[in-house]
Amino acid sequence: MNIIAHARNGFHTKFGVPRQTTVDSRILTRIVFTPEYRNAEALRGIEQFSHLWIIWGFDDSNAPQTEGSQWSPTVRPPRLGGNQRLGVFATRSPNRPNRIALSSVRLLRIEQTAEGHVLVVQGADMKNGSPVYDIKPYIPYTDSHPDAIGGFTDTTPAHKLNVVWTDKANSDFQEIQKTGANQTSSNLVTTREEINEILAADPRPAYHNDPQRIYGFEYNGCEIKFRVTQEHIVYVTAVIALEHIQQGE
Amino acid sequence: MNIIAHARNGFHTKFGVPRQTTVDSRILTRIVFTPEYRNAEALRGIEQFSHLWIIWGFDDSNAPQTEGSQWSPTVRPPRLGGNQRLGVFATRSPNRPNRIALSSVRLLRIEQTAEGHVLVVQGADMKNGSPVYDIKPYIPYTDSHPDAIGGFTDTTPAHKLNVVWTDKANSDFQEIQKTGANQTSSNLVTTREEINEILAADPRPAYHNDPQRIYGFEYNGCEIKFRVTQEHIVYVTAVIALEHIQQGE
Repeated sequence: MNIIAHARNGFHTKFGVPRQTTVDSRILTRIVFTPEYRNAEALRGIEQFSHLWIIWGFDDSNAPQTEGSQWSPTVRPPRLGGNQRLGVFATRSPNRPNRIALSSVRLLRIEQTAEGHVLVVQGADMKNGSPVYDIKPYIPYTDSHPDAIGGFTDTTPAHKLNVVWTDKANSDFQEIQKTGANQTSSNLVTTREEINEILAADPRPAYHNDPQRIYGFEYNGCEIKFRVTQEHIVYVTAVIALEHIQQGE
Repeated sequence: MNIIAHARNGFHTKFGVPRQTTVDSRILTRIVFTPEYRNAEALRGIEQFSHLWIIWGFDDSNAPQTEGSQWSPTVRPPRLGGNQRLGVFATRSPNRPNRIALSSVRLLRIEQTAEGHVLVVQGADMKNGSPVYDIKPYIPYTDSHPDAIGGFTDTTPAHKLNVVWTDKANSDFQEIQKTGANQTSSNLVTTREEINEILAADPRPAYHNDPQRIYGFEYNGCEIKFRVTQEHIVYVTAVIALEHIQQGE
């Protein structure tokens, strides 16, 4: 398997990365081709498609090893509260025999950059730096099955939390916007709406339910601090500029 | 990449294999797990899903080498008549940097066999013996985008040909049904409707247009001979039982 590209976005750690794709997301990911596959000809006609498939590799860092006979036949999907075991092939869990991920995204635009033609996509559930193995056009007549029955994903839709910013977080973010610390060298700008989208999806690890606990995660040059009340309201408590965040790869 | 399963169906050569998936196809494919991944627990809950993704490997035998720097950035999709070059990432061509295929199929049933639990699926565009790397549930809310714009695949839908059986083909097939030669040891039975479906999709190589030429291909223990008139009518001219076809892997 050759790595043809890498994802580039604001998620420098796994925390906060969406658990599934949502093509109308505000969160953009850039697909930057590796030098060997940096060829505009390979993209000829791709702009005719509104959506793409990205076949990519899950990060191994936070997962149990699945090499050889050590694969686990069952997993506990977070969507089911983490208590119920399902077969790995009945879930989209990253802990699978081959750590291949499949994401449908919206193709927003193609940018010409110093790193060649870059695909800017909406809705990827990828961490920054994830390796990409293939990009295919989304073909509605073979890929779209709106009447498909989606098992547990039909009956346990992801609920969205309300997000409230404290005065401190508001003034933190105003300051950050003034200094431009929310804009990185990859030309990504963190907006309030992006932070709200990430938090509304409840990025806490499954089964966490401690209303006192302050969580923090990095997104695109900022550290965002928050807590979640028993009533499932997210309070953003602080936004801190991270000056020395590592860019890109 | 570990091979977790193999496809088993009537397509012992590439000729006749559907060019895309069609979930309402009559053509069944069995997904038989390799001994290491033959574990019913890994399928727990999969019956709750009506459709699956199969991530599998294209056969290398009929394709130009794409190792290393020898990948071709453009391909000529058969759907465009074979004259127009498009970027490989704007097509589903098998001739891509990583020869990974993606197919959505309908999950018909799970069979308990001497080879473990076998998934019986409808609509796979796979050759017999194709290696399978992953199986994922189809999740309508993330995977189905009926309004997606499908580029050239929207404007050049595959046309279906009319299929007519000659008297000889009819009597051939009646004889084959009598002797049971259309039933293989994999418990696959070739029906007239399957043959019609394969031929209606025009399995001739792109750009072929010789109304005199008799084509033949193997399907599930039979060799089917046909020709296609200038008016795009397929005449089935003979169906021959192949006694010594190699089964399964």
